[in-house]
Amino acid sequence: MNKFDNIKKLIVKDQLKLDCGQTISNFPIAYETYGKLNSKKSNAILVFHALTGDQFATGINPITKKDGWWKYALGPGKAIDTDKYFVICANVLGGCMGSFGPSNVNPTTGKTYEIDFPIITINDMVNAQYFLIKHFEIEKLFCVTGGSMGGMQVLQFVANYPNLSQTAVPIACTSNHSAQNIALNELGRQAIMADAKWQNGKYEDSDSSPNKGLSVARMAAHISYLSKDALQEKFGRKLQERDDLKFSFDADFQIESYLRHQGSVFVDRFDANSYLYITRAMDYFDLNKKYEGNLSKAFKNSNTKFFIISFTSDWLYPSSENKEIVIALNSIGADVGYVEIESDKGHDSFLLNVPDFLETLRGFLNTSYERLNEEGI
Amino acid sequence: MNKFDNIKKLIVKDQLKLDCGQTISNFPIAYETYGKLNSKKSNAILVFHALTGDQFATGINPITKKDGWWKYALGPGKAIDTDKYFVICANVLGGCMGSFGPSNVNPTTGKTYEIDFPIITINDMVNAQYFLIKHFEIEKLFCVTGGSMGGMQVLQFVANYPNLSQTAVPIACTSNHSAQNIALNELGRQAIMADAKWQNGKYEDSDSSPNKGLSVARMAAHISYLSKDALQEKFGRKLQERDDLKFSFDADFQIESYLRHQGSVFVDRFDANSYLYITRAMDYFDLNKKYEGNLSKAFKNSNTKFFIISFTSDWLYPSSENKEIVIALNSIGADVGYVEIESDKGHDSFLLNVPDFLETLRGFLNTSYERLNEEGI
Repeated sequence: MNKFDNIKKLIVKDQLKLDCGQTISNFPIAYETYGKLNSKKSNAILVFHALTGDQFATGINPITKKDGWWKYALGPGKAIDTDKYFVICANVLGGCMGSFGPSNVNPTTGKTYEIDFPIITINDMVNAQYFLIKHFEIEKLFCVTGGSMGGMQVLQFVANYPNLSQTAVPIACTSNHSAQNIALNELGRQAIMADAKWQNGKYEDSDSSPNKGLSVARMAAHISYLSKDALQEKFGRKLQERDDLKFSFDADFQIESYLRHQGSVFVDRFDANSYLYITRAMDYFDLNKKYEGNLSKAFKNSNTKFFIISFTSDWLYPSSENKEIVIALNSIGADVGYVEIESDKGHDSFLLNVPDFLETLRGFLNTSYERLNEEGI
Repeated sequence: MNKFDNIKKLIVKDQLKLDCGQTISNFPIAYETYGKLNSKKSNAILVFHALTGDQFATGINPITKKDGWWKYALGPGKAIDTDKYFVICANVLGGCMGSFGPSNVNPTTGKTYEIDFPIITINDMVNAQYFLIKHFEIEKLFCVTGGSMGGMQVLQFVANYPNLSQTAVPIACTSNHSAQNIALNELGRQAIMADAKWQNGKYEDSDSSPNKGLSVARMAAHISYLSKDALQEKFGRKLQERDDLKFSFDADFQIESYLRHQGSVFVDRFDANSYLYITRAMDYFDLNKKYEGNLSKAFKNSNTKFFIISFTSDWLYPSSENKEIVIALNSIGADVGYVEIESDKGHDSFLLNVPDFLETLRGFLNTSYERLNEEGI
């Protein structure tokens, strides 16, 4: 029995042509739902996860036994109130929590795909999740939302399905990966590939995985998720269970110990090849280029109401990049709101208990839902 | 014959007690000089190098055959004018360009020290270089200067030898390593240690070095040396010798290719264990703590004239951290000037052709030299 046997999965029978040119079919999309779909099917929210997230957005993840990644924002009575809304969240294509990814078995060879898995894109991820909406026979979603890579999927979703969601809330994201973003992801990939146990991606048959490389990749990413100020406030130069420096390469400082811990727990729940594929999808993301350098064109056929949220201390997807999306939407007269939330917690703010953010998100969703219902949409 | 046989070295016969408690003696300090020491011995500048620098600050490095690291700032007619000044630059303790470091042979065992080399500090580095000043019988330096870790050495030098230099120019540095700085260095160390070829630091006898890990460490550091804007302007999403994405893990983007190149050329000139030791020394640097949390006390016995330079886009040692040094000096009425240079080139600005920086440095040095000479010092 496989650890993913008891999780929800949609087997997509249809064909899906990927951006790389390959066509897939009969592939699994693992998903979770929270709350109840109302009789009008008007209260559905599709939540997209970020790089290392999965479908278990809240509650206890049955595989990792850890809290869901969006526990502060999503759940009964939370900003995304599952007493009110029906939330669908799927593991992305290329992921490692049950959806079609590099650790799946290739039926034609009987072996796991590993590095022979096709390169996938944000566009492919979104198109794969569209089948879930069809599966639930939802004609119109109330909202699509997500942070970071989840936000990129929001943008791509509206571009691909301009009138499938009443509202869209991309959070702390970008319409195209910057050179620094690509550089940080490439750093992570090179760390994995530098691990002798990666074995050119063919490690499934061997008795060990490139955990050291994956751990280094996670540490690098983690540094980029936090602001300099947040790191300084939380750790500063505090020592780890010692009164003085040990004059060794042990983890003298709490920040060292913290990073090592983040790296080591990550490898228990994530697959190195999935990390390669998903970061590649992020780097390839460029909605501007896809629309001849004019981001506005991506949304010109949509009447979706947008609300964009960024955080002051996010240096990975800074407010300036979020504002480019706001400008593109405004330039075509779209219905768009924007807030920059004051937070010193860096990119991770969207995952953390940041009251201003959570209240703003709650307010937008509840008010929009009431208005759109009143208007009879 | 060793590749370091033909470079200048001072063998320090004296004993030097290190911060870790060990005492060393009969150790080499490799150095280079530029220009001529005048008869009064009043025109000497001691230049301290940064993490991956060495004594070959300008001209062609005889070992690597590459340009010296401070070619824009230092040389005949340059800001640090070697037609006028006598410049001394030494490879730091723990380095790998001829000074006493982990690739030296331990005379008691007949084997290279490698990971058994003592943990060294910025204080130890500075004290080791003091012997060079004694060697040249210089009673008073005209200036001590350096950027990044070089700047930390400037601060430590003045603290240890309060009246040994007329002027001090710390550039783009800090008085104590922040949590983010420690995190980035720890990331580099973990990348090296994750490489199976590192073999717990005992790789000298084997036929290969942890080059992949060291290369990843260099990539991580390189990202931190450049600003987000500089990366975007230089690379953006430009593709590397191709018209379209290749849907593979090749270096599709120029930034990927650039980082891989930076990593691969670095391993030819640098030793992985030296990287561990020197980053450790940087992380341990905390001049505030050494003076009971009061940085001013580090300089209270000094009459050295300070000039501090920072760069607007430096996110590794931002202006705010440089200003803390200015504040500490001002609070004891020290002679201190400060400029923040407008540059989009990030931390690397001090190594690059940034005219405002170079002219400011030239102006400070030449004017100060004239005034101090007129005053008969």
